[in-house]
Amino acid sequence: MKAQIIIIGDELLNGSIQDKNIQPLTHWLDGLGFECNQILITKDREDLLLAAMESAWEKADLVISTGGLGPTKDDITKQVMGKLTQSSMKEDPNAEALVRELYARRGKEWHRELNHYHILPEKVQPFDNPKGFAPGLMIKDQVKRKLFLATPGVPRELFAMIEETLPQLIEEFFPQIDRGDKVVTLRTYGVPEEVIFNQLCPGLWEELEKYGKVSSLPQIMGVDIHIKLHDHSDYPKKREAIIDHVNLTALKENIWAYEFKLLEEVIVEKAAAKNLKIGFAESCTGGLVAHRITNVAGSSQIFMGSLVTYSNEAKMSCLGVLAKTLDNWGAVSEQTASEMALGAREKLNLDIALSLTGIAGPGGGTEEKPVGTVCIGVATANENTAKRYNYVGDRELLKQRFAQAALMKALKIIDSF
Amino acid sequence: MKAQIIIIGDELLNGSIQDKNIQPLTHWLDGLGFECNQILITKDREDLLLAAMESAWEKADLVISTGGLGPTKDDITKQVMGKLTQSSMKEDPNAEALVRELYARRGKEWHRELNHYHILPEKVQPFDNPKGFAPGLMIKDQVKRKLFLATPGVPRELFAMIEETLPQLIEEFFPQIDRGDKVVTLRTYGVPEEVIFNQLCPGLWEELEKYGKVSSLPQIMGVDIHIKLHDHSDYPKKREAIIDHVNLTALKENIWAYEFKLLEEVIVEKAAAKNLKIGFAESCTGGLVAHRITNVAGSSQIFMGSLVTYSNEAKMSCLGVLAKTLDNWGAVSEQTASEMALGAREKLNLDIALSLTGIAGPGGGTEEKPVGTVCIGVATANENTAKRYNYVGDRELLKQRFAQAALMKALKIIDSF
Repeated sequence: MKAQIIIIGDELLNGSIQDKNIQPLTHWLDGLGFECNQILITKDREDLLLAAMESAWEKADLVISTGGLGPTKDDITKQVMGKLTQSSMKEDPNAEALVRELYARRGKEWHRELNHYHILPEKVQPFDNPKGFAPGLMIKDQVKRKLFLATPGVPRELFAMIEETLPQLIEEFFPQIDRGDKVVTLRTYGVPEEVIFNQLCPGLWEELEKYGKVSSLPQIMGVDIHIKLHDHSDYPKKREAIIDHVNLTALKENIWAYEFKLLEEVIVEKAAAKNLKIGFAESCTGGLVAHRITNVAGSSQIFMGSLVTYSNEAKMSCLGVLAKTLDNWGAVSEQTASEMALGAREKLNLDIALSLTGIAGPGGGTEEKPVGTVCIGVATANENTAKRYNYVGDRELLKQRFAQAALMKALKIIDSF
Repeated sequence: MKAQIIIIGDELLNGSIQDKNIQPLTHWLDGLGFECNQILITKDREDLLLAAMESAWEKADLVISTGGLGPTKDDITKQVMGKLTQSSMKEDPNAEALVRELYARRGKEWHRELNHYHILPEKVQPFDNPKGFAPGLMIKDQVKRKLFLATPGVPRELFAMIEETLPQLIEEFFPQIDRGDKVVTLRTYGVPEEVIFNQLCPGLWEELEKYGKVSSLPQIMGVDIHIKLHDHSDYPKKREAIIDHVNLTALKENIWAYEFKLLEEVIVEKAAAKNLKIGFAESCTGGLVAHRITNVAGSSQIFMGSLVTYSNEAKMSCLGVLAKTLDNWGAVSEQTASEMALGAREKLNLDIALSLTGIAGPGGGTEEKPVGTVCIGVATANENTAKRYNYVGDRELLKQRFAQAALMKALKIIDSF
């Protein structure tokens, strides 16, 4: 079944705000098995909006719009839905009862001077808005089996509808909905996509296409490969077959997850399962590694801390790096990285400590140690080593790449425990 | 002049990724005076994409597409541009030279087995991609005075193009563009927009409207007020008049910048001017404060480090927080925050130390200290204090709000030095 989405609002077309609705909406529709080919973001101008609604209503089984339900003059979704259904406005007792309830729920009283939420086009029905005052609006075409749902543009109102209101409306109207899993995701690290498909595993793309539609999505220092199965029958068996297949290829070494999870989530999960305490000593990443780990709820179970030592003085006072190490080898050196990891392990009482010292630029590079150089150190009960790497990018990207490299290394070490 | 944007990529239509390109792109086009009525997000299916390109190319003076320039089979932007211009593929020596340069710039060598970047439709020209390997693609219709720019979907590649490549292409093609400075931005903190304009400064909106179009844009714990002047004549004089005007109002106290700069940039700039050494002790923000500061190039001049102490043990061993303080008051308390700041100041040898300890959730809240509670401590040569605040949001938003509150406090302290 096909879905079309119409996002309504001037503020999205002049750069005033960043959209937050599209991803949750498409993710949810994808899970229900709707195919969404196009999304139109449009100004709230009547001619543009009517054309957008007519086109979507023509092409799709399900149309969802967001925005334009409020009380001000630029909120025209309701009027345009009237034009779409060629029905005229009238007072709707169901709408009035619902609006009174939405206000009462939040301790307020609705009256007719406030707004016209009780007036609707004849062929439009209201539905609940769990977190807002303006009802959702709906058109049901029972003959063509099409459904139009107009939802609010305010993200938290929309998100509450996706959780609480829309699933039931959709499942009632489309009882045939296929809600099973269909996508297999392989997350890889360290090989660019052209190398994967042209050099490392020529023919792999075509092999995977036997299972479904293949797409690849470059990430920071890695590539996600998605295989969307033609249908969800035998999902677990097909997923296993795909995993078995890729694990026989040279790509196996580079796959770090067989589902869509963040690297920091995998780390927290695996370290927690093994009851490992981890932490970091960061210089060039300036706290980014710790920030990523602590974005994961429950990370306090495994993450003890990260000593962000930007100055040489801090490396000595907080981590016990020796002055002569800094003098002889410099702050960006395997020797300093080793001592940083050791210091973090001791100070924070860790099973696994990783350290990073490098040059994120734009300044600070030399011929011997250019911008993009990073030394990553490791300290465990059995190991205290460090290795040097070189990456390219601007300051922010280098911080990201350095952090990704250290987290990948952390995952490997956790796996070895 | 009219612009249309086409965003290409399956991953945006099935909820795999959140779009990051639309806001920067529309903001930039709006600044150049382009009117953008609609944006289409479309799957990379040839029929859909060709219809989208034809429609946009018909309606707009400038078409910008993002995505589909890469080397894999689902990257079809180039082929569809060939259909749009009814021109056939051929090897393009300019494209080959450019691609070789893009690879060489990043220390790699391009060869023909890697990809087909050197093959273009006859009527399509390549242009520089400062941060990527795949060139941008361009169609110039000199008769109808229309320009089509196909840009990468990877945000950092697109952003670099917006900074470095696209302005020149557009200005050469549309010499009539008015690109003088036109916008005055006031960045405020701590007062919601309805309070600013209804209670704190009633009438301010109308006063500012005498200078140009006013808009206000809520940010994390602050509001940016933009005044877009009717034209760019006498910009410095008008900007000064606006600043003088608002500085006579009660809003003056809440304005922390009179131009669009990041808070961390202002902090690094002002601390460097006063030769101050600053650093942090972070618990609940988990390194985010340090990450933001170290995103600023040159921050090493003022930022010594941040001791991210997530566990109680780390607060004691790294910052010297007393066991009895933690026992008596808990980790999230003014007392602990004070000692954390003091410890960071001593360990890192700082002029200004700030500390944060709080509950980002989702777990860990109590009735007395709910999720969203944060204590922010300060230590300078003359002061060692802490204060408790309460914010709302999910884990990531709370980390952002906590960090913003601490950085605003850092700025006030720097100003007082």
